[in-house]
Amino acid sequence: MALNNDDLRGDAAHPAALPPTDPRWEEVLSPLRWSEGRVVLLDQRALPSEELWRSYGSEAEVAEAIRSLVVRGAPAIGCAAALALAAGARAYPSDESGLRRAFAGGLALLRASRPTAVNLFWALERQARVFELHVAKGVEAVRDALEREALAIWREDIAACRAIGQHGAALLPDGARVLTHCNAGALATGGYGTALGVIRAAVAAGKRIQVYADETRPVLQGARLTAWELQRSGIPVTLICDNMAGHLMQRGAIDCCIVGADRVARNGDVANKIGTYMVAVLARRHGLPFYVAAPRSTIDLATPSGATIPIEERDATEVTQLSGQLVAPIGVAVRNPAFDVTPAELVTALITEAGVAAPPSEATIAQNLNDTPRRP
Amino acid sequence: MALNNDDLRGDAAHPAALPPTDPRWEEVLSPLRWSEGRVVLLDQRALPSEELWRSYGSEAEVAEAIRSLVVRGAPAIGCAAALALAAGARAYPSDESGLRRAFAGGLALLRASRPTAVNLFWALERQARVFELHVAKGVEAVRDALEREALAIWREDIAACRAIGQHGAALLPDGARVLTHCNAGALATGGYGTALGVIRAAVAAGKRIQVYADETRPVLQGARLTAWELQRSGIPVTLICDNMAGHLMQRGAIDCCIVGADRVARNGDVANKIGTYMVAVLARRHGLPFYVAAPRSTIDLATPSGATIPIEERDATEVTQLSGQLVAPIGVAVRNPAFDVTPAELVTALITEAGVAAPPSEATIAQNLNDTPRRP
Repeated sequence: MALNNDDLRGDAAHPAALPPTDPRWEEVLSPLRWSEGRVVLLDQRALPSEELWRSYGSEAEVAEAIRSLVVRGAPAIGCAAALALAAGARAYPSDESGLRRAFAGGLALLRASRPTAVNLFWALERQARVFELHVAKGVEAVRDALEREALAIWREDIAACRAIGQHGAALLPDGARVLTHCNAGALATGGYGTALGVIRAAVAAGKRIQVYADETRPVLQGARLTAWELQRSGIPVTLICDNMAGHLMQRGAIDCCIVGADRVARNGDVANKIGTYMVAVLARRHGLPFYVAAPRSTIDLATPSGATIPIEERDATEVTQLSGQLVAPIGVAVRNPAFDVTPAELVTALITEAGVAAPPSEATIAQNLNDTPRRP
Repeated sequence: MALNNDDLRGDAAHPAALPPTDPRWEEVLSPLRWSEGRVVLLDQRALPSEELWRSYGSEAEVAEAIRSLVVRGAPAIGCAAALALAAGARAYPSDESGLRRAFAGGLALLRASRPTAVNLFWALERQARVFELHVAKGVEAVRDALEREALAIWREDIAACRAIGQHGAALLPDGARVLTHCNAGALATGGYGTALGVIRAAVAAGKRIQVYADETRPVLQGARLTAWELQRSGIPVTLICDNMAGHLMQRGAIDCCIVGADRVARNGDVANKIGTYMVAVLARRHGLPFYVAAPRSTIDLATPSGATIPIEERDATEVTQLSGQLVAPIGVAVRNPAFDVTPAELVTALITEAGVAAPPSEATIAQNLNDTPRRP
């Protein structure tokens, strides 16, 4: 499939590809581009001080970009991995056994990049099915099919985010002061965002929303990404440290919480950025709704409960160094789990593109997966 | 009172004064020194990378050192303020009206330095009583009396910490994995520490204790001070981000929590470093004991409950800048409350030098204030 650049819109400074169906770049704010067979990623490590786009031509390069957090956020990782296979396919050999070996190799590299977000494995699975469907037709057909599927995954993710936004916006009252943790925004998805997509949709519907953003140690996705993204979109945002959320709730400054998810288990348990569980426990103590917004690609029916979700443990230097400077004594022991699990009983509602599962449970989630997604 | 330097011990690199009654410098690890009529403070902003001692000769200088966190921790602030009045007295005029004006001025400067820790006001009150007792006897008598009282406040604080340690150590089982927040250690007191004093005493009694230290954003007292202090004392410590405590409790890695206090209200509500409330809520959810260790100078009978404790709001740059580098977009709104209030109902026990008030309440606290402190 050849891309027609006339169909694609980017901002003037970064002319690059968006899925052809979604021309509103400034609203969608995608962290991904697809340009001349290469994956182009907004380097989220450089935000907010710099908007730096990096171009990748192989699965190994994109796997490293995922591992090092150039791109992060479960849906965005899924899109980037799908595009990485499309990019890698440009260099596939033409014999079938060579093709199979090359595809399996690219798949393995991407699969090993990060363990917790299930959208990664879901997107790779979709590409694996497409590969099997087309492998007999030769390398050209495989290449075109992988590219077509990657763009479909990306396009569908933006559409899912818009639908999540529509469903979720109905839950936010006018004037709501909403706490969010990490970045479940446009930057974490194909575009538009999940938790922040709900806020975008509420604002677009004319509601006044005030966002409190947890800075989200250790990588500071809240301070660096959520604050940047909301400020850029003109949505009022106040930055706090993670440990201030309880105090604000106690003083009546928060009306509800909304976060994204890296993996939702069959029973509704939610793995998400470390600290999410703490927010949920505090929300419960203060009687505040705690919402999880995620596309259905985040739901993993193969995972019965949160207890079996692998929790990535990342490097100690993320905790001991800030801006490259050591803030802890040399040699101190560190734990750095990147995710935690919020039990379903603490989640008021799971918001997907097909509607609201409230409260999330095996039954409401099964129902949600059967429902027809809203057409935005 | 003239200090006899032969009675004082310091380490070789920093020969300075410790209260004469407490020669065990390395164990006490005081962040304060009194040297030739000047207050010498370990600059806690420079830790853990540098051990820098700064010398101050006036109340204005020490007030600024308190405000800028050269010295922090409620009991240490009280000791530093008492010493500051003794240092300032060296420059008092000799006429009584001039004396009164000079003392009131120094008192006002120190009183305005920070609002939440009550030990500051308690120490200033003690010095004010001493001043009134001696003012008629002239400037020499005032000077000697303020110095004697400051050294007594300091010496008593170390003794209180040792007694807190003895009482608290009995509550920690052998093998306990103990979560602490901020730094309620030697560095936060005249020496030895309150929460960490309990851990020191348990270790000295032969118990194996593993400490988990919350890094404590935004100023990182946990990462910079608690980790440094425990490492220096050979007590096993693992550093985590504040938002990881819930996950560790959920996985069964924490046995109990112990923190210090900046002010304890008459009903047992506890103001302490921002994030303490969150730890207490998580401890309750997981059925873990949550202990507060503080000298009785931290109890403020004039404050009926936590609702009326003033909560200091500090500068936004503490949140938006790390090691001088901006980590949030320019112009983002920030909240930076430095303390929060943990209601008495979440506190398993308050540990003072006179024993354990469990659970803390108006009745158990009144009893504790009447009890005779343990002689260490």
